[in-house]
Amino acid sequence: MENGDTINIKLKDNSIKEGILMPSQNKDIIVLKLKNGYNIGFNKKEIKKINLIKKNEKKELKFESLKENNTMKNILILHTGGTIASKISYKTGAVSNLTKPEELLSQIPELKEIANIKSKFVKNMASDDLRFKHFQELGQIIDKEIDNTDGIIIGMGTDNLTSASCALSFILENPQIPILLVGSQRSSDRGSSDAALNLISAAYFIANSNFKGVAICMHESSEDTSCLILPSCKTKKMHSSRRDAFKAINTNPIAKINNKEIKFFEYKEEYSKNYKFKPKMEEKVGILKIHINMNPEEFLIYKNYKGLILEGTGLGHAPISEIDSYTKIHKKIFNTLKEMSKKTTIVMCTNTVFGRVNMNVYEPGRRLLEIGIISGEDMLPETALIKLSWLLANEKNVKELIRKNLRGEINQRIEYEDNFLDEKKIGNFDKI
Amino acid sequence: MENGDTINIKLKDNSIKEGILMPSQNKDIIVLKLKNGYNIGFNKKEIKKINLIKKNEKKELKFESLKENNTMKNILILHTGGTIASKISYKTGAVSNLTKPEELLSQIPELKEIANIKSKFVKNMASDDLRFKHFQELGQIIDKEIDNTDGIIIGMGTDNLTSASCALSFILENPQIPILLVGSQRSSDRGSSDAALNLISAAYFIANSNFKGVAICMHESSEDTSCLILPSCKTKKMHSSRRDAFKAINTNPIAKINNKEIKFFEYKEEYSKNYKFKPKMEEKVGILKIHINMNPEEFLIYKNYKGLILEGTGLGHAPISEIDSYTKIHKKIFNTLKEMSKKTTIVMCTNTVFGRVNMNVYEPGRRLLEIGIISGEDMLPETALIKLSWLLANEKNVKELIRKNLRGEINQRIEYEDNFLDEKKIGNFDKI
Repeated sequence: MENGDTINIKLKDNSIKEGILMPSQNKDIIVLKLKNGYNIGFNKKEIKKINLIKKNEKKELKFESLKENNTMKNILILHTGGTIASKISYKTGAVSNLTKPEELLSQIPELKEIANIKSKFVKNMASDDLRFKHFQELGQIIDKEIDNTDGIIIGMGTDNLTSASCALSFILENPQIPILLVGSQRSSDRGSSDAALNLISAAYFIANSNFKGVAICMHESSEDTSCLILPSCKTKKMHSSRRDAFKAINTNPIAKINNKEIKFFEYKEEYSKNYKFKPKMEEKVGILKIHINMNPEEFLIYKNYKGLILEGTGLGHAPISEIDSYTKIHKKIFNTLKEMSKKTTIVMCTNTVFGRVNMNVYEPGRRLLEIGIISGEDMLPETALIKLSWLLANEKNVKELIRKNLRGEINQRIEYEDNFLDEKKIGNFDKI
Repeated sequence: MENGDTINIKLKDNSIKEGILMPSQNKDIIVLKLKNGYNIGFNKKEIKKINLIKKNEKKELKFESLKENNTMKNILILHTGGTIASKISYKTGAVSNLTKPEELLSQIPELKEIANIKSKFVKNMASDDLRFKHFQELGQIIDKEIDNTDGIIIGMGTDNLTSASCALSFILENPQIPILLVGSQRSSDRGSSDAALNLISAAYFIANSNFKGVAICMHESSEDTSCLILPSCKTKKMHSSRRDAFKAINTNPIAKINNKEIKFFEYKEEYSKNYKFKPKMEEKVGILKIHINMNPEEFLIYKNYKGLILEGTGLGHAPISEIDSYTKIHKKIFNTLKEMSKKTTIVMCTNTVFGRVNMNVYEPGRRLLEIGIISGEDMLPETALIKLSWLLANEKNVKELIRKNLRGEINQRIEYEDNFLDEKKIGNFDKI
């Protein structure tokens, strides 16, 4: 029997497991890929018998030509790599990339019924390796194509997909078409893959709504039935493997697509016609995660950076107070931050994922405000990083604009006072 | 009218708002603390009329002596500071500390009906300033008292409460009594404070269950009706301000306390009698958050550290691959990690909060495994930091033990293969 063959194994307890034989790193363990897409390992000692069900067939993928239909919208799919453009090799067990974008499209014939699909290969990389330069490059490609298509879908790896959607939101101000980022948590050839539904839903949403702007399209639940259109700057990947990992944070999703029905949440379609392409981003920005037992050197390395996001604790705190002999070091941290903030724009976010920064409530928060550290409001740290980089490269009044909503990245307060927190506005914490 | 007075204001739209007058940092804005505990600001231009309802009364707090009752259990409350030990000054608007632990107890007479309460002042600090030394100190106090009481409650600030509960779990192996950490998200004198219910529920749980070990007791929902007992090493503060901010991650809560009813979730009460006190922790450990556009220097500063937690993306990734001219820098990051991992124990966790690290799925993950970076399984990064520090100071086979469940910090797999992910085991993602 070879890797890729379908087999079943009978265990000592007489239960039977069926799946595809996968490579194993441990010679004592047999690994099966079950129908639900999961790999499961069995110790050879526990196995009574193994049966071959079916030899591995090498599938010939069909390459159907994509015909243009005048009554349908035109959608351009940009391929940048990631799981959505990958397949599992049953020889090596590794996930490898599809060689051509058409390979993916040929697996999803439904797309051709929804729109005229054009496809363009941009890059083949895991989103982990994305840098600001890639966002600028992607922005340039979109800027060139934006007048020639009714919508753009960007296939991308999921790990940094939300950073990409946020960056494109800033780089492309008021795009007059929908630009949807789509990833998948399971590679396209797996039974449990979310790639097809995510792509079909994105295309359907573009073809059947008047939405304009950058957003994300991913699974709503772990069932393969509905997708959400999620806000470009207020979405976080909240699970390492689930198909419904992407959640709107401190706000609602934009819309839901379920069986050819599009339902908008509380979303105001207010679009400006003033499209601008501003690709510049400042390279010297970073995020520092605040945690227990920190040392001043962890702050100091950012002293030549133009911008720094602190992922603080709770309402926006950091270890800065000398309380006893153990906390003398915190005085150094405070002085380091004080010195740094003269040249570096420092923005405070929270490590709690949900909720808003409020540095007025406690004394240490107020001391940080006094030395010029700025509240990041209810922005995710990853969003604040992208926004700060973009502001530093494009705008003069960075310290004012960082707290102002520009692309839906901040929930505006309806009242004036810093202390005000409205649980209803903060949103879907219960619903996640 | 003075700060602290109860007033109502009539707005230009004839709506009326009642609350306590609070200090305002902006002379054009009047700030009211509403009955629900929130502060709200009104622009003076919008106000028609202001009425005084009641002058501020200075409350005399009762200091009732705590009588011992032989039929009740004995509980020791250790006070370390934080919001739970604070009150709002209506003069300054600031949150300040209660001067004596008795001040808090006198506000919650119910505690005396549940157990014989003793109270001990340890420290008065925000949990943001906690360091490993404080966990050791707290461990020493508990080790001294552990035979003289039926249970311990530790009042603490919420920002780093989960790091403290995790550290105490490792420092105190198999304690023969319950040790519950309790915080509050709103200061004790506020109508919306969660302090009383959290403390009463903790005391009730100690008095009426056989639970042993370290855990957390906090609000279950934003209503003031029920509390959860949460696992010491698998809980995260998931909201900056809500009272139900504390959520069990990748597991269930231990128990629920609702109106004098204790309900255990799927929790096996298996207790060893082999109590050990091991307070040592390694100081030179850190967490590095992986994000977009990183630079090698952000890794390099940890080169003299004994341990480093990487809060990676997705299944446990970092930017380490040279794909194009923009990503040359990632080769340097990879080589930096390779060099560092010869001396530093590097553990990979995920930035998705929920889910498990699995570095076998993608090529970059496997390359990180090859250079000796260890999977942090489904541990929270903050938990992995504490565990790694403790292991480095107390154990020899750190690399083996970091992946083994010692204190409920890792959900053990029921199968053998690294690729195996069981959504049901991963737990309460849908329930948060």
